[in-house]
Amino acid sequence: MIFDLKTLIKIPSVSAKNQSLVECAEAVSTLMNRVGINSEIIYLDPKDKDITSPVPPPIVYGEIKSQKNPKSKTILFYNHYDVQPEDPIELWDHSPFSGKVEGNYIYGRGAADDKGELIARIKAVQYLLQVYDGDLPCNIKFIVEGEEEIGSPHLQKYLEHYKDKLKADVVIWEDGFVDSNEKAIVSLGQKGLFCVEINVKGPSKDIHSSNAVLIENPALILSKIVCSLINGKTGKILIKDWYKEIKEFTPEEKEAIAKETFDEEVFKREVGVKRFINNLTGYDAKLAHIGLPTCNVSGLSSGYTGPGSKTIIPSKASAKIDFRLVPDMDYLLQFERLQNHVKEMGFDIGDDNSQIELNLLIGENGYRTPLDNVFVKPVLEAAKEAFGDSIVSVSAAGTGPMYYFYKIFNVSSICIGGSDISNKAHSPNECFRIDRLGKITKCIAKIIEIIFIA
Amino acid sequence: MIFDLKTLIKIPSVSAKNQSLVECAEAVSTLMNRVGINSEIIYLDPKDKDITSPVPPPIVYGEIKSQKNPKSKTILFYNHYDVQPEDPIELWDHSPFSGKVEGNYIYGRGAADDKGELIARIKAVQYLLQVYDGDLPCNIKFIVEGEEEIGSPHLQKYLEHYKDKLKADVVIWEDGFVDSNEKAIVSLGQKGLFCVEINVKGPSKDIHSSNAVLIENPALILSKIVCSLINGKTGKILIKDWYKEIKEFTPEEKEAIAKETFDEEVFKREVGVKRFINNLTGYDAKLAHIGLPTCNVSGLSSGYTGPGSKTIIPSKASAKIDFRLVPDMDYLLQFERLQNHVKEMGFDIGDDNSQIELNLLIGENGYRTPLDNVFVKPVLEAAKEAFGDSIVSVSAAGTGPMYYFYKIFNVSSICIGGSDISNKAHSPNECFRIDRLGKITKCIAKIIEIIFIA
Repeated sequence: MIFDLKTLIKIPSVSAKNQSLVECAEAVSTLMNRVGINSEIIYLDPKDKDITSPVPPPIVYGEIKSQKNPKSKTILFYNHYDVQPEDPIELWDHSPFSGKVEGNYIYGRGAADDKGELIARIKAVQYLLQVYDGDLPCNIKFIVEGEEEIGSPHLQKYLEHYKDKLKADVVIWEDGFVDSNEKAIVSLGQKGLFCVEINVKGPSKDIHSSNAVLIENPALILSKIVCSLINGKTGKILIKDWYKEIKEFTPEEKEAIAKETFDEEVFKREVGVKRFINNLTGYDAKLAHIGLPTCNVSGLSSGYTGPGSKTIIPSKASAKIDFRLVPDMDYLLQFERLQNHVKEMGFDIGDDNSQIELNLLIGENGYRTPLDNVFVKPVLEAAKEAFGDSIVSVSAAGTGPMYYFYKIFNVSSICIGGSDISNKAHSPNECFRIDRLGKITKCIAKIIEIIFIA
Repeated sequence: MIFDLKTLIKIPSVSAKNQSLVECAEAVSTLMNRVGINSEIIYLDPKDKDITSPVPPPIVYGEIKSQKNPKSKTILFYNHYDVQPEDPIELWDHSPFSGKVEGNYIYGRGAADDKGELIARIKAVQYLLQVYDGDLPCNIKFIVEGEEEIGSPHLQKYLEHYKDKLKADVVIWEDGFVDSNEKAIVSLGQKGLFCVEINVKGPSKDIHSSNAVLIENPALILSKIVCSLINGKTGKILIKDWYKEIKEFTPEEKEAIAKETFDEEVFKREVGVKRFINNLTGYDAKLAHIGLPTCNVSGLSSGYTGPGSKTIIPSKASAKIDFRLVPDMDYLLQFERLQNHVKEMGFDIGDDNSQIELNLLIGENGYRTPLDNVFVKPVLEAAKEAFGDSIVSVSAAGTGPMYYFYKIFNVSSICIGGSDISNKAHSPNECFRIDRLGKITKCIAKIIEIIFIA
């Protein structure tokens, strides 16, 4: 298992750089075929097969039809073979694409997110094929995409294009978390997300700031727009109708949220803050984290930002804003509301000559699998058996493309995996715990067996 | 004259890079001595003489005592031998330190600002020494500093340290403008300026933006502070007591302002804007440009600013703000008012652990020579003789260290020079018109003669 994981980590399949993606897809497909999963590499456009770095990159498909129970339920495992960029490389203790093993850990970009989880799933199938004499108790499929880390821009098209091939009864999601008591968290939801770039045009070039009394400053206009979006003290988004479609949590969901663990003090220490917005704490903090949309400024740039000062009126100013959405919010409608908001402030955002440009960079909607979905219980059970204990989580605070599977196949997704916050996904020194690789492999094998029984 | 100017342009004396400053000071001093001005290179600390790139760089001092009229008035010529950085170098048509001559123009960094003006002054003195048989009608002094382009951080100390040496009755400032009708503008004032960096601390590192509902965003706080400083629509600065010390213009000043030329349409086209703040126009636009303090955002930076999106809460956010001040405003008092403003918003700006850091980067006060100063008329007369016509300007909208001369010597400064907006000071393809070099040389010679008579 470690050898195969190391092989995948050594392929620097960074989707943001369109780097080594076909190579990695081929390695995953080869590995699947070797253990007995019928795998192929599929493209949106068949012609892309002949290109070294096609965009969109291919998807690895895998399947085993149960010979004994061909009419059983079908599980679709969703994973991705791409990884985040390795920067800042100087903060890594080992080469990010080495797969270095030290004690109970294997290090490298993708070790946790998501190559470790993928290997565990393949190994779980390999194990069951041995136990069941070359057969499985139920049908399984794999979809391993290559663009998860850049917002899965082509996943929807792949799902639509290969609708028959990918059809399933439930999706077992790529990852999941284990809490500090080694309890597996079975998460049922993902928030939506859309990212916008706001560009404000000023004078045709940077000009001497002695003219500031006459010439409008684009950085000031940008600040004004940014401030108008959200009340920083309360966290409330101020765009008209922003919360309109959001449904309240059901009593069952509230109960589940109350039971979820969230170690506030550890989290605050980890991120270096003294308090949460609006002084949220306990249940309210969990509720907000899981259930509220967000508006976040992820970047600002304008004018001179080097050492000392340069007295100019900048010719432009830009902000990157990301909005997390909860289920029933549609990112296109919310983007329209944002556009209207800026228009109602009196700004012109019509065309190329406009003072303000609002660019939608990426967008996907959120989804939550209902608590009473029939597959939730079997997954919780399997996780309990493998990890010792398990708990359900109504939704992650983060985002993923779960919504597409619901929209196109009308199936729900359930997240289970073996990493925790110390595995540093997306950060330097990403790693996976070797004992957890064993546990999540056992958990996946149990899921396949229990879902057959269910 | 062209040969000597070329020699100076070829020395890349960029103060921002502490580059070739002693070399340039030596070249200026040598040139002065050659034409008969007694020159020396002076240091704040005598030990700096033995250092290749001393900080502060030296000042070039020059003087001629009138033999016939040793008790006459003393004119101090203020100039600088340092230049702005040459970037962006790719936009230059010729090498920025070539001194290339083409038709009526000599090109190069410093051609207009300020090496051309300096050469004209030296040549004017050389000419008069010939006319007056090795003597001058009145006493003259030169101070040529090497830090003007970085805000003259040591000029005040130099003036204090060499108070007796530099004492004079009037300062003839380094530059000035000629309008589109070839009329010389004799400017009497400079605004003050102070630049501040506002740093806002967020989480201890960039963190995943799914936490935006819990963690305060430093870029949002920064935007809020920026917006609170000024009403972008009216240009009014919103900091308490900001305008408290400002005196209204006298009727004479208002009359002079009304007579000043300001081609709004040409200016708007040049900077690519359709209208001025508050729809200012005509006399009101001139009054604001000359007489109002400004608050300008010259830079913003936070988080991710590359292509596409990265969903993070940034760990910090920074803004560069510059404030122009008019006479009677003190930059230290105004900085204190700014600090109080931020404190009153509820932010903690006390010490290193504070959420907000306010750094004063540079600061100097403004000054205006009164319209009835005895030296104004002679300079206007000399300018009229050299250029054909002249007009007085109450103040420039820009900044310079004129205030120090008033504060330390109680003398006023008067600006006269030969450049116009097409000379591209601070920009690529900076140049000086060769016929103007002749005119400003004649003008300076006239000033020396007329001030003697006055």
